Amino acid sequence: MKSDPEGIVRVGLIGFGTVGRAFARVLAREGADLGLRRGVSLSLAAVGTRGAAGKHDPGLGAGVRWTEDLASVVSDPDVDVVVELLGGIEPANGLIRAALGAGKSVVTANKMLLARHGTALQDLASEKGAGLGIEAAVAGGIPILRALRSSFTGDRVTAVSGILNGTCNFILTEMEATGRAYAEVLKDAQRLGYAEADPASDVGGDDAAYKLALLARLAFGRDVSVDQIAREGITRLLPCDFVYAKRLGRTPRQLAVARVAPSGHLLLSVRTHFVSETSLLAKVTGPFNAVEVRGESGGPFVFSGRGAGGDPTATAVLADVVEIARGGAPGARNAPPLGFARLEPCTPATSDEFVSPFYLRFIVSDRPGILADLARILAENGINIDAVFQAPYEDKSALPFVVTLEPVSGRALAAAFVAINSLGFHVVPPLALPMTE
Amino acid sequence: MKSDPEGIVRVGLIGFGTVGRAFARVLAREGADLGLRRGVSLSLAAVGTRGAAGKHDPGLGAGVRWTEDLASVVSDPDVDVVVELLGGIEPANGLIRAALGAGKSVVTANKMLLARHGTALQDLASEKGAGLGIEAAVAGGIPILRALRSSFTGDRVTAVSGILNGTCNFILTEMEATGRAYAEVLKDAQRLGYAEADPASDVGGDDAAYKLALLARLAFGRDVSVDQIAREGITRLLPCDFVYAKRLGRTPRQLAVARVAPSGHLLLSVRTHFVSETSLLAKVTGPFNAVEVRGESGGPFVFSGRGAGGDPTATAVLADVVEIARGGAPGARNAPPLGFARLEPCTPATSDEFVSPFYLRFIVSDRPGILADLARILAENGINIDAVFQAPYEDKSALPFVVTLEPVSGRALAAAFVAINSLGFHVVPPLALPMTE
Repeated sequence: MKSDPEGIVRVGLIGFGTVGRAFARVLAREGADLGLRRGVSLSLAAVGTRGAAGKHDPGLGAGVRWTEDLASVVSDPDVDVVVELLGGIEPANGLIRAALGAGKSVVTANKMLLARHGTALQDLASEKGAGLGIEAAVAGGIPILRALRSSFTGDRVTAVSGILNGTCNFILTEMEATGRAYAEVLKDAQRLGYAEADPASDVGGDDAAYKLALLARLAFGRDVSVDQIAREGITRLLPCDFVYAKRLGRTPRQLAVARVAPSGHLLLSVRTHFVSETSLLAKVTGPFNAVEVRGESGGPFVFSGRGAGGDPTATAVLADVVEIARGGAPGARNAPPLGFARLEPCTPATSDEFVSPFYLRFIVSDRPGILADLARILAENGINIDAVFQAPYEDKSALPFVVTLEPVSGRALAAAFVAINSLGFHVVPPLALPMTE
Repeated sequence: MKSDPEGIVRVGLIGFGTVGRAFARVLAREGADLGLRRGVSLSLAAVGTRGAAGKHDPGLGAGVRWTEDLASVVSDPDVDVVVELLGGIEPANGLIRAALGAGKSVVTANKMLLARHGTALQDLASEKGAGLGIEAAVAGGIPILRALRSSFTGDRVTAVSGILNGTCNFILTEMEATGRAYAEVLKDAQRLGYAEADPASDVGGDDAAYKLALLARLAFGRDVSVDQIAREGITRLLPCDFVYAKRLGRTPRQLAVARVAPSGHLLLSVRTHFVSETSLLAKVTGPFNAVEVRGESGGPFVFSGRGAGGDPTATAVLADVVEIARGGAPGARNAPPLGFARLEPCTPATSDEFVSPFYLRFIVSDRPGILADLARILAENGINIDAVFQAPYEDKSALPFVVTLEPVSGRALAAAFVAINSLGFHVVPPLALPMTE
């Protein structure tokens, strides 16, 4: 770790949005205490941001250089560690590569960049002996990446799964609590700052898929690509699904799952599950996140906490900077950044190997023979019905009912759905959700 | 990290009980894979244990030296890292001091020793530049110590609490599920291996206090002593307490709590709490453990997992050995073993500062005026009653009833209890439990 002659590690920050601002504040507030109690001296040397002149905050330290020239922060000889909080692919990727190339350690919370180019960045960090801190990129302040890198090395992880998107979890728990429709609750979430103006990446599963790719690399040592992760959003859930969930002793949760299938390949998906009300994950509500890890010898372990927001993310970034200042960051010592000597190629398992009981919900225009048609198609595909639920309903033109299935493979269910979807009585396309503990 | 010329890190194991045996097996099973995938070569060089001749297991490796002379394992020039799984204070303390004194890194799961002499051992490790791995000493495989040491450095922890004793949690959840009495359930726990033949250290709170002392040192950087932790066992809970808990929407959990009081001093206790059924901790059942961390900027974070048992503890020990082999262990690099440059002295807060709503349960020999007496004493001590519950009961000679209190300080309640205990109608001494979220 390079540092100035007084042993102070000088931080260059690029990006000054919500998290960047929170990081600069927590560093200004905690810096002296870190020096006294943790034996680590940190100072903010430079901030690179658009409109730097208007953002200059003297409370963050007298000696801070403010600039619009982001590359000048990276090349600044007074900067030892670069903290990247811009988000997005470019210019973040180029700036991080420049920093690592110059042997400077980097801390980033940029999940999209790490999901797309993280393996290359981590190879570059190892090659240059620079640290690359990524803890804040997944589940905000929950120290799950460090745990996977350092604490599960004595076991073989068999599954890692979690509630990784706070927006989805907020919307689902609000729909459950209030009985309101998705579109209404989304508006509330946007007003409260829990959802972006364009929520597509959150509610469609892309955001959780970025995080799952990072988790799965650390858990399994395989080079998981975002594109290998099957995704289904939460937008098709209706208020009646929450009524049926309750009747089944369950609650809907968007889960990102990476699990070793019997073939040894990885099952990778982001989708809504009906989880049992007795599970810890059912108690993870609102904008909270949780990650569950199962190993051959241990587990299940569950880590839960606030998954996003300026302060939790900023403190996770600061913890990585402290680790780098202590010379302990992965990449900067004899520890591969992902905990594995090298990542193996990843082959995803097929839906043949995804076997689960399922919840099927139909909204139909009532006529005789609907259940007979469904039962016949399911039977033809070798699928066993567990139970049928139908609440009494006035409106025969849009009648909801539910069929639960005994464990069935995703492939068999998909085959059945080709035939089911072609039936003429659907008012909205039918919904299939796995039911898990 | 010293190692043999081929880069293999050679492990000397002292202690071959449940955890020692599990560690040797997991090392034999995972060793080759660790070399291939993690880039860390480990071998078991020596095992020191009483009755070594009868325990020799060729499945653990051909080159293992078996001996009854524990000190010879520590001084063996073929041993780079010492794994201590004896338990107890001596000879473990002397052997670990000898290893660290010789600059050899040590991994231990010995919570009692670490609680009593951990600060001195960690000072010695730092002085000698040796690693000291202690993750397995608290909550088995839950990587909570590493998280406190490395992941909460960007925040200030305000409270750490948890379900740290699997025996107590098993007994409490069994009593809740079956309605049976403590003594009966204890016998089951002993039969199932969840409780020792002498359960005193578990059910009385000592075991949880050892672990809390370690957690609190890492969380707050203060030199917490076990003797500063107030302890109350689970042995006085009766089946009726579980009935009333349910009526109050709560469940009894033995919680170890270290929390910064308004004065800045630490509140330290191990006792049974009535926790809300909506909390994550209420979902931690059977032999599972959980730790909750709150910080100024983040939290609450909850970490849950299997708290004990051979395999989870053994994998936590192995993860520490891997970290040492990578040169990343605290003590072995520029990182203080507890995450703090030095521990400050700890002054415990007084019970004045422990303010909580309380559950009071009485079993009385019925006569007129009991509630009037109680209400008068509580009022004289400035304590407000929230509610009174009394189930109809046939047996007037041993009548249970419950009074819940609005938030009250531990000191005020203790003063009231001096007077309450002197009343003549108690069949068993009354019980007071804090009610927490």
